[in-house]
Amino acid sequence: MLKLHYAPDNASLIIRLVLEELGTPYETVLVDRASNAQHSAAYLKVNPMGTIPALETPDGVVFETAAILMWLVDRAGQMAPAVDSPDRGAFLSWMMVASNGMQTDLRQHFYAERFTAGSVEDHRRIVSKRLQGHLDRYEALLGAKRSWFGGETPTALDYYVAVPLRWFALYLRGDNWFDLNTWPRLKALAQRIEARPAMQAAIIAEGLGQTPLSAPSPANPPEGAAL
Amino acid sequence: MLKLHYAPDNASLIIRLVLEELGTPYETVLVDRASNAQHSAAYLKVNPMGTIPALETPDGVVFETAAILMWLVDRAGQMAPAVDSPDRGAFLSWMMVASNGMQTDLRQHFYAERFTAGSVEDHRRIVSKRLQGHLDRYEALLGAKRSWFGGETPTALDYYVAVPLRWFALYLRGDNWFDLNTWPRLKALAQRIEARPAMQAAIIAEGLGQTPLSAPSPANPPEGAAL
Repeated sequence: MLKLHYAPDNASLIIRLVLEELGTPYETVLVDRASNAQHSAAYLKVNPMGTIPALETPDGVVFETAAILMWLVDRAGQMAPAVDSPDRGAFLSWMMVASNGMQTDLRQHFYAERFTAGSVEDHRRIVSKRLQGHLDRYEALLGAKRSWFGGETPTALDYYVAVPLRWFALYLRGDNWFDLNTWPRLKALAQRIEARPAMQAAIIAEGLGQTPLSAPSPANPPEGAAL
Repeated sequence: MLKLHYAPDNASLIIRLVLEELGTPYETVLVDRASNAQHSAAYLKVNPMGTIPALETPDGVVFETAAILMWLVDRAGQMAPAVDSPDRGAFLSWMMVASNGMQTDLRQHFYAERFTAGSVEDHRRIVSKRLQGHLDRYEALLGAKRSWFGGETPTALDYYVAVPLRWFALYLRGDNWFDLNTWPRLKALAQRIEARPAMQAAIIAEGLGQTPLSAPSPANPPEGAAL
């Protein structure tokens, strides 16, 4: 049985949703961020990076959101172009932009005080420019109508891009410049993904409310705290 | 024929070396950083991120170092655990750390003035802590003697971790705290990788000198400039 180390409304939500979408059985273990459990010796033995999520599997622990996603979908043979597909290269490229571009920059914004010794407002302003660039590029990519992004059947990339739209709306601090209407194709993606049956389990487990991607409200989780 | 968009001693070097190691035919196209060609309209059509490397393939362009690496080695069925291998998950995890951890943080250090509005020295100090953490974790991982990292046959991860050791030594600005002797297993990895036949072609093509990873000197490339 797969075991997902998670915290409500953290990056682990992307993994939970893909597990639900795949119909893969899993159990969850709360990482209590209120007590900084992600940096405890016990958790660092599971994931030496001290990040959430981590996934325990029969083959050992997988960590880093993008690694877990690729591992899950490649093993399932679903939700991503296969290794021999002509779409594989482009898919991997945009998965990496979601990882070391969008996700990394969101952390730089949310936890700006860890990433700068100067003004956190200045830091957030610089990071915001990069984040806007990522949103613009994904909006353009949706316009290109690729089967593996915004297509009929959701892929790992759809979830990897759509779920953070929630965090843009809720958690950008300072002047929140984000308005999903600026990126209408991303808005449509958010609406398609939040309507998936997979979303219902996550809404209940993490207290996400009904339109968690396109018009989100703060999480009200039954266990743990969204931090 | 694969076409690698490269600049001397840039992240494209990792791709060149893996192409050499695989024995895959390829040609190169210089991206002239002296004229900022990576941000030209022509290059942005190849790679919308404006980063180097990009790889043109019969299936279209692949960009982002980690994406190109995974695409190449999965297609070749070499230099990485296969999708169904029990080592796949751990391998992917540490590939992602190399990408959105080590490589991303090196850029934050090298081009600190783009990433902070405050003191670049302060910014580099914060980033340096993260970089030291990455080196410590890879050193520990080498101690665990995994077949897919520091093992008999080089993998994409070996190259992805070993090549940047050159950049740590040469390009950290301000007080360069890096001394490869601090991480003896990484030093041994650097020495093994630089002794590979694959390295000789890169040494000539990019002017890297004889011990390019374990005791590097600045690049003296026959075309373009290492910036």
